[in-house]
Amino acid sequence: MLSNFIYTLDLLGTLVFAISGVYAAVEKKFDVVGALVLAFVTALGGGTLRDILIGETPVSWMKDMNYIYIILMALPISYFGNKMIHKLRKSLFLFDTIGIALFTVLGVQKTLALGLAPQIAVLMGVVSAVFGGVIRDVLSNKEPLIFRKEIYATACFIGALLYLVGHYFFNNQAVSMMCSMIVVIIIRYLAVSRQWTLQFNPKF
Amino acid sequence: MLSNFIYTLDLLGTLVFAISGVYAAVEKKFDVVGALVLAFVTALGGGTLRDILIGETPVSWMKDMNYIYIILMALPISYFGNKMIHKLRKSLFLFDTIGIALFTVLGVQKTLALGLAPQIAVLMGVVSAVFGGVIRDVLSNKEPLIFRKEIYATACFIGALLYLVGHYFFNNQAVSMMCSMIVVIIIRYLAVSRQWTLQFNPKF
Amino acid sequence: MLSNFIYTLDLLGTLVFAISGVYAAVEKKFDVVGALVLAFVTALGGGTLRDILIGETPVSWMKDMNYIYIILMALPISYFGNKMIHKLRKSLFLFDTIGIALFTVLGVQKTLALGLAPQIAVLMGVVSAVFGGVIRDVLSNKEPLIFRKEIYATACFIGALLYLVGHYFFNNQAVSMMCSMIVVIIIRYLAVSRQWTLQFNPKF
Repeated sequence: MLSNFIYTLDLLGTLVFAISGVYAAVEKKFDVVGALVLAFVTALGGGTLRDILIGETPVSWMKDMNYIYIILMALPISYFGNKMIHKLRKSLFLFDTIGIALFTVLGVQKTLALGLAPQIAVLMGVVSAVFGGVIRDVLSNKEPLIFRKEIYATACFIGALLYLVGHYFFNNQAVSMMCSMIVVIIIRYLAVSRQWTLQFNPKF
Repeated sequence: MLSNFIYTLDLLGTLVFAISGVYAAVEKKFDVVGALVLAFVTALGGGTLRDILIGETPVSWMKDMNYIYIILMALPISYFGNKMIHKLRKSLFLFDTIGIALFTVLGVQKTLALGLAPQIAVLMGVVSAVFGGVIRDVLSNKEPLIFRKEIYATACFIGALLYLVGHYFFNNQAVSMMCSMIVVIIIRYLAVSRQWTLQFNPKF
Repeated sequence: MLSNFIYTLDLLGTLVFAISGVYAAVEKKFDVVGALVLAFVTALGGGTLRDILIGETPVSWMKDMNYIYIILMALPISYFGNKMIHKLRKSLFLFDTIGIALFTVLGVQKTLALGLAPQIAVLMGVVSAVFGGVIRDVLSNKEPLIFRKEIYATACFIGALLYLVGHYFFNNQAVSMMCSMIVVIIIRYLAVSRQWTLQFNPKF
């Protein structure tokens, strides 16, 4: 039952990421192909890069067609559901944040399961969550958003660390997952509502 | 004999892709290194990304030096053969289109041969054919051409689907290949000559 | 003792590459996350791409935490050590050049060790040395520097060829490494001091 719940969250997160890819394409006036590529890349890019780096190929979404179907659905949903999407903005932001939190934790788990070091697992958790957006921005010929705005990646980093603490000290996967994800969600909410940023301006 | 013919087409397609990479470098006033990198990336980038995603590493061109030699030849050919290239523009467009069609079908075949799902095979067929150009554009700091122009990727998509139909229903590889490639070539010719585009402009 | 010396040079090269990534981030006014990502990507990107292409995954830096620690150190060093870095400019340039030379040779060795062809080994040597910078530039939304400036990649190419000559004809790894690296360093110094470039301007 827990795993069904996680799978549902995973698909919802994937859908919201894909919709954000379609929006990026519309903003750039790309055509249908551009919209589809950005939907795929935003939704699956982070996990794909993680799988390639840790050597888990064929990459994981190739084994479950639901990821492809849900991403394909992002196109008609964005096209016909503009008004609804606009109304549901807050819910979408919630699912986007849940998606980020979940992708972080799943990335950490998968890396640990391969026997790699916890430091690598933290890195791969963050990569899973944020690199879809980075690749989307690179393909749109823009500077990656996470290099400037919000403490998006930092929230994932803290969540990944917290998951490790739960994993090694309390040895309870479900509780570690929940705690870690809740912290990521809270940090992102606070960061957005209070406009936290991480400045880095050494004088040269 | 058929496989010799396919191999020759493959090398010709690779050469034309590499020449298009050199042209992109000249347009940007890159130096020799830039021209070589763009030649390699345009010619081999799509197949390389496909191999990495499906887990076929070392990537396939590492096992046959002819791909490297033919790409290296793109540089002197572009340099000394401007006039000839200009005259042969129509032939080059033909070989470029044959290349795209062939790379699509070869990508589908290779993915199916690994036991992956037909949906994945279609995706990987399109990736093989078009991502060389996408990476070339990203490295040139431009927006990927396929996101805006022609129905380049769509032609590959239809060709990949058609190959699957032939593969599963008629079980004749050679005929499936020919039909699929001919359809890709016809769609691309019609798309270019009639300036077909795929608009996607939802109002937000 | 030789391998300790090489390992030390490798870590020093990694640090200098990471610092150059931090500088690129500061120039673009990215935040801490951007600085860290560019530090990682500049220092490890070339070797990572090589490992992915030749199928050595999990990528090699995942097995030795020192690479991660030394890259993390690049951030406080850049922040607190501006003046020192400015004073040490010439030493940093030296370590950067040693890093490039070493990464080239290590890339060639690793590829040969997998039984791949010497032509591939030369390519992978150059990729190891220069693609960290290429990915850094792509993520910063700039045109890759190596496509225009210095004969950076060419120096690596010549060094890689020279290593092969030593490897096959004299069969002495240490001497081949030293000769190859010294030549890379000399070419780069001459190229910078005499502003050598490789023009490629066919008239179209």
